[in-house]
Amino acid sequence: MTTETAYAELVARLKRSHVLGTVNGLLGWDEQVNLPPDSADLRAEQLAVMAELQHAAASDPRLGELLAELEGRDGSPAFAEASAGRPGKGTAGPAVPPYQLTADQQVVLQRARRDYDRVVKLPPEFVREKARHNSQTFHAWADCKARSDFAGYAPFLQKQLELAKQEAAYLGYAAAPYDYLIDRHDPGMTAAVIERLFAELKTDLVPLMREIVSSPVKARTDFLRGFPVAPQREFLRAVTERLGFNYRRGRIDVSLHPFCEGSGADIRMTTRFDENNPLNSLFGSIHETGHGLYEQGLPLEHQGTPLGQAVGMGVHESQSRLWENQVARGRAFWRFFEPRFRETFPAQLRAVSSDELYLTVNAVRPTLIRVDADEVTYNLHIILRFELEKRLLAGMLVVADLPAAWNALAQELLGLTPPNDREGVLQDVHWSGGMFGYFPSYCIGNMMAAQLWHQVRKEFPGLEEDFACGDFSRLLGWLRRQIHAQGRRHDTQELVRVVTGEPLTPRHLLHYLRERYLPLYRA
Amino acid sequence: MTTETAYAELVARLKRSHVLGTVNGLLGWDEQVNLPPDSADLRAEQLAVMAELQHAAASDPRLGELLAELEGRDGSPAFAEASAGRPGKGTAGPAVPPYQLTADQQVVLQRARRDYDRVVKLPPEFVREKARHNSQTFHAWADCKARSDFAGYAPFLQKQLELAKQEAAYLGYAAAPYDYLIDRHDPGMTAAVIERLFAELKTDLVPLMREIVSSPVKARTDFLRGFPVAPQREFLRAVTERLGFNYRRGRIDVSLHPFCEGSGADIRMTTRFDENNPLNSLFGSIHETGHGLYEQGLPLEHQGTPLGQAVGMGVHESQSRLWENQVARGRAFWRFFEPRFRETFPAQLRAVSSDELYLTVNAVRPTLIRVDADEVTYNLHIILRFELEKRLLAGMLVVADLPAAWNALAQELLGLTPPNDREGVLQDVHWSGGMFGYFPSYCIGNMMAAQLWHQVRKEFPGLEEDFACGDFSRLLGWLRRQIHAQGRRHDTQELVRVVTGEPLTPRHLLHYLRERYLPLYRA
Repeated sequence: MTTETAYAELVARLKRSHVLGTVNGLLGWDEQVNLPPDSADLRAEQLAVMAELQHAAASDPRLGELLAELEGRDGSPAFAEASAGRPGKGTAGPAVPPYQLTADQQVVLQRARRDYDRVVKLPPEFVREKARHNSQTFHAWADCKARSDFAGYAPFLQKQLELAKQEAAYLGYAAAPYDYLIDRHDPGMTAAVIERLFAELKTDLVPLMREIVSSPVKARTDFLRGFPVAPQREFLRAVTERLGFNYRRGRIDVSLHPFCEGSGADIRMTTRFDENNPLNSLFGSIHETGHGLYEQGLPLEHQGTPLGQAVGMGVHESQSRLWENQVARGRAFWRFFEPRFRETFPAQLRAVSSDELYLTVNAVRPTLIRVDADEVTYNLHIILRFELEKRLLAGMLVVADLPAAWNALAQELLGLTPPNDREGVLQDVHWSGGMFGYFPSYCIGNMMAAQLWHQVRKEFPGLEEDFACGDFSRLLGWLRRQIHAQGRRHDTQELVRVVTGEPLTPRHLLHYLRERYLPLYRA
Repeated sequence: MTTETAYAELVARLKRSHVLGTVNGLLGWDEQVNLPPDSADLRAEQLAVMAELQHAAASDPRLGELLAELEGRDGSPAFAEASAGRPGKGTAGPAVPPYQLTADQQVVLQRARRDYDRVVKLPPEFVREKARHNSQTFHAWADCKARSDFAGYAPFLQKQLELAKQEAAYLGYAAAPYDYLIDRHDPGMTAAVIERLFAELKTDLVPLMREIVSSPVKARTDFLRGFPVAPQREFLRAVTERLGFNYRRGRIDVSLHPFCEGSGADIRMTTRFDENNPLNSLFGSIHETGHGLYEQGLPLEHQGTPLGQAVGMGVHESQSRLWENQVARGRAFWRFFEPRFRETFPAQLRAVSSDELYLTVNAVRPTLIRVDADEVTYNLHIILRFELEKRLLAGMLVVADLPAAWNALAQELLGLTPPNDREGVLQDVHWSGGMFGYFPSYCIGNMMAAQLWHQVRKEFPGLEEDFACGDFSRLLGWLRRQIHAQGRRHDTQELVRVVTGEPLTPRHLLHYLRERYLPLYRA
């Protein structure tokens, strides 16, 4: 078998596995957007069977053979070694493959090896059980949240926690399950690195938040009522289209919890509407559009291979946050969109000045609900969740004590205590999908977004003037080249260093927050 | 392995294959309801991979082993014999299995054997190619129909025709591909049987249609404008819910061509709205509700096995037609729903009398478009398509000559010639999915619906008085017991005989049409 043939077969198999993943993704999207209330059992079965098939495709021994062959090893004994270590390390084979793979192909090979080694360690029955439990837990969460019934939800969460530890153990992380769960969302990242970054951030963020919150300047919210859904929908469509989202390869629908699913070939975003809070849906949609733009910017020809995949959730969040916050909460963005917003809602906005509207867009007010949080306090919501996940996974906190621990931290960090679990520990969907280690990505994304924002404005000093003319193409082009086109060439921290020339740091985020918010809130 | 174990494994494998089928079904539904315009390539890939996996599950040699074991045969040599003939026939094994299977289990075994023998004869590459071509052809059809471009569509149709013949050849029907295609939709039915039934129907139907059409009594259509979509949607929801559709296990959306997809656990119906034709959407939705009620009536505990599956498309259509026509075009139905319809659209219906409205509901007027046809002329649309399919499959008509042949038959049967192919040969979606042999099912369904209607009114003489009170439960209960609960116990013609005591005949349809329409159209 020639290198070309083996490589082509590897890519074909990776793409097939990707296609199965997209089917799974669509089932998940449909579950949250369309599923009739009593059809959950069938959906759980569908997801279980599909997860099993996807796992079978991703762990096919033939993939192992191809990887070994392309790495310049031969036969199955060498493959066994390969699956125990990283390519190029140890004594199992030469560091540089003897075949003439291009640099791109070597990236594919190395990332595919990492994925393969990871997936073959999970037994198919475990994958099936996990998929079924995810679906059941999602529905239990939705029910229990509606009733604010943590006790009813606890056994489902407990099982998710056990499954997460079990998964970490299969992957050789029995002693550090949280590191595994974090790395799964942000390759290369560890709990220790995050702990250091978050500690540095928290030190300056808490006083900054207090300074802003104690300011006599208060954003108006009295005019935020009576915004009908239909024009909200049209306005957010016009905004997200102008930012660059391609609706010929995507759509936006309504779900309980906003999310973005799919790949660049077919991306499904969701939002939710509130007639008394049009900014929530607008900024939520811009956030999801940031995710969508990243997926649509990944090279279509590499879909399904590591060159056509996102790095991880932290980088994904850097994209959604940059569009939502640095761009869409800025003066220049509103210079262009404010007249259009007023045209859509003339009566509702008649008695609001431009400065008042801009302050409302940048309102800072501690809230119990993460997804409603402003970008200053948002990071404190994440620090709270990181702290709790860390303790849960280390066995230092039991599920039954979670609501009390949540409430204590909410009081400490945000100065608020949830009146019930619906507005506290039950508010987020993530844990119901077993997605421990996901939350830190939001804050990593916030730090990275500010760092990218600093860099792109250094490279294009007049960039924000584009926005005032409704032109976002220069920014999008830069992100396409620097981030999107890279696929999974680099791990999270490596990518930050390559693009900005320095390691990931909370410094730029703190600087950005001070620069944007202190002038607004100085009386 | 005990009989119980083998039977349990058989059922588990059938159910797994069914779950894969439901995933495929959902992809198809989403394609027509939600798919962004440029995402068709990915969907084609998804459908191709899923079709391949479903085929692999349905043709797994282990299924063959289990079937052979349960049939009282052993080992693989006997399995080869089993796959060549029907169980209980020939000399391959005893007619009665030596194991103690219940009568129900024997039905499962026999139908599963038929399906298995059929599926193992199709090579996986063929199944994959067919699925990919179906998806491509659907999009080509939608484009070409919009432009009325038959020449652009012809190569896609030609390929579908070749694939259909190829499939028939794989199944041993090289000499009679149309019989195979018909049997695939209506088990046990042949082109010769249909030809005889249609000839008998046509003989009396054409003069009946002429008598009605030449009547001086004309239905009003002038008031059919300005019916907003939102209340149309609410009204049809109220109607279909009262007929018995369970929206906790189903939903209705909008698509270009109305259809019903899914199983009783999650059924997806579609409709389309026209502000100037509210009856179209209403009756279309009632039609799809008939399909939905059948699926929801199939025993949920047998989902995925032949005891939880529909017989075929003819029986399916008998259910949709009976609700749409015999029930919803009747006086009693309108006695209950007319006040509600008027309440929903007071201004639009102010100047229309009850008799006028009822006549409009039962308007007979030859049209070029099958899905817009009344129930008198509808059957002529089917006879036209049957005639053309028969010739195409026999090689007596080439694709290039299809538009001319269509137009000639339309003139002969309906007295109308399509002004363009969009309103002629390009109007239907079916052939773009390779579904030759499907159309006759509509007319088989019409005949069967009238025959069931005759029977149920014989059993419940005051049945229509229920409808006038908005109660459809006695009819639904009867259909549940007589048809739905039977699953695939009987073939189409056998089921008709079992339920009505006589073979399928067009006599009841002709009688019903005369009884309903002649009094209305006698001046």
